[in-house]
Amino acid sequence: MTPKKQKHAISPMRSEDYPEWYQQVIKAADLAENAPVRGCMVIKPWGYAIWENIRQLLDAQIKATGHENAYFPLFIPLSFFEKEAKHVEGFAKECAVVTHHRLEEKNGRLIPTGELEEPLIVRPTSETIIGDAFSRWVESYRDLPLLINQWANVVRWEMRPRVFLRTTEFLWQEGHTAHATHAEAVEETLKMLEVYRRILEEELAIPVIVGEKSPGERFPGAEHTYTLEAMMQDGKALQSCTSHDLGQNFAKASNIKFNTADEQTQYAYTTSWGMTTRVIGSLIMCHGDDDGLRLPPRISPKHVVIIPIIPKPELEQAILSYAEKLAQELRSKNYANQAVVVHIDKRDRRGGEKNWEWIKKGVPLRIEIGPRDLEAGTITLGRRDDPTHAKIVCSTADFVKQISEMLGEIQNNYYRQAKAYLDAHTHKNLENFAQLKAFFTSSNENGQQGFVLAKWCGDPETESLLQDLKVTIRCLPLQQSHTNGQCILTGRAAVLDAIFAKSY
Amino acid sequence: MTPKKQKHAISPMRSEDYPEWYQQVIKAADLAENAPVRGCMVIKPWGYAIWENIRQLLDAQIKATGHENAYFPLFIPLSFFEKEAKHVEGFAKECAVVTHHRLEEKNGRLIPTGELEEPLIVRPTSETIIGDAFSRWVESYRDLPLLINQWANVVRWEMRPRVFLRTTEFLWQEGHTAHATHAEAVEETLKMLEVYRRILEEELAIPVIVGEKSPGERFPGAEHTYTLEAMMQDGKALQSCTSHDLGQNFAKASNIKFNTADEQTQYAYTTSWGMTTRVIGSLIMCHGDDDGLRLPPRISPKHVVIIPIIPKPELEQAILSYAEKLAQELRSKNYANQAVVVHIDKRDRRGGEKNWEWIKKGVPLRIEIGPRDLEAGTITLGRRDDPTHAKIVCSTADFVKQISEMLGEIQNNYYRQAKAYLDAHTHKNLENFAQLKAFFTSSNENGQQGFVLAKWCGDPETESLLQDLKVTIRCLPLQQSHTNGQCILTGRAAVLDAIFAKSY
Repeated sequence: MTPKKQKHAISPMRSEDYPEWYQQVIKAADLAENAPVRGCMVIKPWGYAIWENIRQLLDAQIKATGHENAYFPLFIPLSFFEKEAKHVEGFAKECAVVTHHRLEEKNGRLIPTGELEEPLIVRPTSETIIGDAFSRWVESYRDLPLLINQWANVVRWEMRPRVFLRTTEFLWQEGHTAHATHAEAVEETLKMLEVYRRILEEELAIPVIVGEKSPGERFPGAEHTYTLEAMMQDGKALQSCTSHDLGQNFAKASNIKFNTADEQTQYAYTTSWGMTTRVIGSLIMCHGDDDGLRLPPRISPKHVVIIPIIPKPELEQAILSYAEKLAQELRSKNYANQAVVVHIDKRDRRGGEKNWEWIKKGVPLRIEIGPRDLEAGTITLGRRDDPTHAKIVCSTADFVKQISEMLGEIQNNYYRQAKAYLDAHTHKNLENFAQLKAFFTSSNENGQQGFVLAKWCGDPETESLLQDLKVTIRCLPLQQSHTNGQCILTGRAAVLDAIFAKSY
Repeated sequence: MTPKKQKHAISPMRSEDYPEWYQQVIKAADLAENAPVRGCMVIKPWGYAIWENIRQLLDAQIKATGHENAYFPLFIPLSFFEKEAKHVEGFAKECAVVTHHRLEEKNGRLIPTGELEEPLIVRPTSETIIGDAFSRWVESYRDLPLLINQWANVVRWEMRPRVFLRTTEFLWQEGHTAHATHAEAVEETLKMLEVYRRILEEELAIPVIVGEKSPGERFPGAEHTYTLEAMMQDGKALQSCTSHDLGQNFAKASNIKFNTADEQTQYAYTTSWGMTTRVIGSLIMCHGDDDGLRLPPRISPKHVVIIPIIPKPELEQAILSYAEKLAQELRSKNYANQAVVVHIDKRDRRGGEKNWEWIKKGVPLRIEIGPRDLEAGTITLGRRDDPTHAKIVCSTADFVKQISEMLGEIQNNYYRQAKAYLDAHTHKNLENFAQLKAFFTSSNENGQQGFVLAKWCGDPETESLLQDLKVTIRCLPLQQSHTNGQCILTGRAAVLDAIFAKSY
């Protein structure tokens, strides 16, 4: 058969208008929508189910590494923000401020009343309020390490919101820990970075560069900020989580002191680390194609969708019971330590419509079952990692036998494809600022520029040179070459390897 | 042996000062604390782990009944509140109002700036913002029923906050559904009430009266509000969840319309239902005793705590490996469809101190292992449902064999005790208002008054008669006797059975 000209479900295609493609994938997969509140989103069931899966995997890792969940107030007194100077600078500009606690009706309209003595900030992050609790909870070295995590919503007022990537309210987890020594705090920071890397690479199939932020990109108030940088299919970077070594800065601001074994009083060393609903944006832009979302099986809310094709009503019962039997057999199989998740789509719609809906939603495997399959003991299979969406007839028994392996294959294919893209778009041959500038101002094939891996002298002052290019140092990879070279920004002698890129 | 005079871990005892006993149990069990933000609480790891268990059980039931989770904005535009008149009246008085979105430094202080054109309300409940989404999501009868649930934090400004029972911010789930017919909406409302009843009675071991709220106690804007009323150990009622049939009131306010099969346009019928962190308060006050919390095994974060008793350092390794082996064996057993949760408390503290800590935290089973147990193949067992905390030596092998059964016994004992208390304190022999008044103004043994089950004429005007007594109609039990009698408030002929009580 001659392949027909490919028709795509998403318009525009990635190559035509990447930002608009992103919005259209979200719409087509029914993941989320803009809320009537500026900058906020409604996370719809399919998007939220993905978040629940990510949350469950990450939560298990957070607990396995000895942390306990707790919950702290949504509101932070304004005065708490004034305690850590750099933190104020970084966060105070974009906060939702609660000033009143009542509404009263006047002339048929509701008017805020009951003004608060001290305004409350809706938490943009919880270092200060959790630090306040830690100052009460930590007395002795025996209370350390204190390893706490919170799942919560946070608010940062966004001027240019984009669903999942940058929303005024978003969901996240924020880990907060306190330690007796700086070495332990550093170990914690890197341990959680590794937990995130495993979630990103092994569960979300998103390859990342593991690195440290340059001083200009550090979390306000941190000594060191570590990051995972992923590459989207337009060559831009997306910071997919961060882990901060806060030194004693927040301990001093919040007065987290402890008595050491030899009866001295000392400030603790704290860390914080977070991953947000932003990773769903990363997932979409890393794996999505011109037909919509492609979900790695390990975090897909459904692994297999069965679409019964019922040409005549009298066949309905036979086809549905064949589908139910297949579903039962598949559910008895395991993938990634859980039963395979199977859904039979019995809705009263055309088979082709349903098929495309599940393609757009990114479900790994689609199965159509029609009258001929009943006779032959077959299924008609569509794999989401096949861009042609070819329908392959195969034996039901063989399929059931291979289900776990097939899901594993799809997971690996997504990772391999993303890794190949990352490697192909990481450029190591640029040597000076003129070349860097030419690279980031030109638009090569499809406007994809990618990452530049080059030498940097480490002088924080030089980071501002990148501003006009809308480029930043994304990170200094933890895996350093330790070779000598010339700083791509200044020409000075330089040893550090750094990743330069445009970013979300 | 002559029993020594009982020494209690919690002071005051329940009989001395019940409200203060409640606060002391929360402190002793390390469940939560007051936050530096007025009316807000910090839920500490032990308290949050209980909430996670309740959440997990309830979430599974919500999904099993066909609902999907989603997430809606924290902020609701002020104008949305003006859409449903009764709803405004009920909620607008106690809201956190966001009026600014920036802070700026002036003379060294942070000042709110960036005033919003329309103030935003921090959600006290989400009918209006979810209704807005539903109005976009529902077009045809094929889109119905729409069955959505949200896990979220909500804020209702509290003048007299009490941890778990009444906090400005609390955690909950709120279900919101839309249906084509009123009958379906009623069915949904009662189905979720039954889900809650099972969680309360079968998981939390809290017996409840299942009933409908009288008009005076209805959710603002609802046609019918259903409730589960539990009895605390001071005889007061605690409303442990609600489920609302909203009729078409919110559909009209939010414009949730659909095309029927015969091409008519019609408003949908909606429901909402919620359970909050308040149930933790119910759990404490229903089962707690003068030694602290008592956790029903089905929601206890740990089932068994093993306390190694190591008199000499050279015995440490042998005792710890005996404990580890026992823990492994117990973990291979199941209770309530999960592996038994075992914790070995290796902290460097005295055994007696640890023992009392776990008593106060309410763990069902405590095991001490000392040198003699190693030789004899025994354990020393303490059961939390034994008020004497007697330590019983028993064979390790027998204990492992009986673990699931023993946890089941404790669960049943807590339920039975609470049910006996509820039955003993539900008074059915009061006949007129004078008797009702005398009953609720007298204080009988320990100040425990309890519930009065009596006839009510159903006239909403009469509910105000109860105000001075600080009593309300808690509910009209779904199980009605249908007998004739006299209204306890007015003496009029009455058929309805109603529960009268003081409440939290």
